[in-house]
Amino acid sequence: MPLVRIDLRQGTSPAYRKAIADGVHAAMVESLAIPPDDRFQVISERDADSLIYDPQYLGIQRSDKVVVIQVTMSVGRKPAQKRALFKRIGELLSKSPGLRPEDIFVNLVEVAWENWSFGLGEAQYTKD
Amino acid sequence: MPLVRIDLRQGTSPAYRKAIADGVHAAMVESLAIPPDDRFQVISERDADSLIYDPQYLGIQRSDKVVVIQVTMSVGRKPAQKRALFKRIGELLSKSPGLRPEDIFVNLVEVAWENWSFGLGEAQYTKD
Amino acid sequence: MPLVRIDLRQGTSPAYRKAIADGVHAAMVESLAIPPDDRFQVISERDADSLIYDPQYLGIQRSDKVVVIQVTMSVGRKPAQKRALFKRIGELLSKSPGLRPEDIFVNLVEVAWENWSFGLGEAQYTKD
Repeated sequence: MPLVRIDLRQGTSPAYRKAIADGVHAAMVESLAIPPDDRFQVISERDADSLIYDPQYLGIQRSDKVVVIQVTMSVGRKPAQKRALFKRIGELLSKSPGLRPEDIFVNLVEVAWENWSFGLGEAQYTKD
Repeated sequence: MPLVRIDLRQGTSPAYRKAIADGVHAAMVESLAIPPDDRFQVISERDADSLIYDPQYLGIQRSDKVVVIQVTMSVGRKPAQKRALFKRIGELLSKSPGLRPEDIFVNLVEVAWENWSFGLGEAQYTKD
Repeated sequence: MPLVRIDLRQGTSPAYRKAIADGVHAAMVESLAIPPDDRFQVISERDADSLIYDPQYLGIQRSDKVVVIQVTMSVGRKPAQKRALFKRIGELLSKSPGLRPEDIFVNLVEVAWENWSFGLGEAQYTKD
């Protein structure tokens, strides 16, 4: 169900980007209890002009390794679950590919459960 | 009003991608009764590393021809209308460019009617 | 807090695109009172096949210079503030880089305040 968009600067390896995508997904499985095979992610590499970030907003020192993660998911998670997700993404991406937690930006967009079709022209989560 | 983002693997022709965009738009005109000239779409081609999808989530067999369609639109459509939209997208993209319905992923993001400006610095849908 | 996605046709200069990003950000600082260093923007250049727009929807004459601006931000702005934002974006982008107001498309996506992490694995806006 989540649709994840990941934006980062170009110049990384496919393995590095895969580690980010893997970590984000694992964090969602652990923190939101989504099924492990519920995985849909789009990754975009950006040049310096095309990914603009503030290097110190809220006192957090960001670098060109910043990763912007936007997750569209269904409503219903409590604030504590969202905080657990942010924390776990930070932990897992710190381990691999070795991101600084300062460089991990996450935004959640919530939608109704009826707003998904995973194929076959059907809304699999709400059939009534 | 809808803003549509379409992501798919690279290696298709412009005509193929246009058929997808045309079909998604026609389905919205038919199912949501949006005006035929209310069309704004962004299409992104992705390499294999940059579009990650599960090949069997919910028992649906997806292939590298998977198309991820994210529609931002105004609130107010009932679940039945959304289901009609998913169904019609599936039907039209099956006809042209000949997608398997299993390969069509759709997500809807709903926003307030006042959240659109179609030009001129105005919110055309809500002027009061 | 806003995460801004800007899509436009390819063929412009980095300075031109920076002027757009600068103007959108300045309009948000002025109209929504966001902090000046709360800036996160992603810009995508598109070829003619990949950015589809209607050239006259709602009687507004759009050209290939159309710019599609999608802003994800926290809930709570009143309609008047949103209208002020649209107006100010139009004014500032008309000045620099000299866009026609007809070519400026804006969409707002609103999310909960707890839906942001600006780094460090924390939800900075809601810690309780």
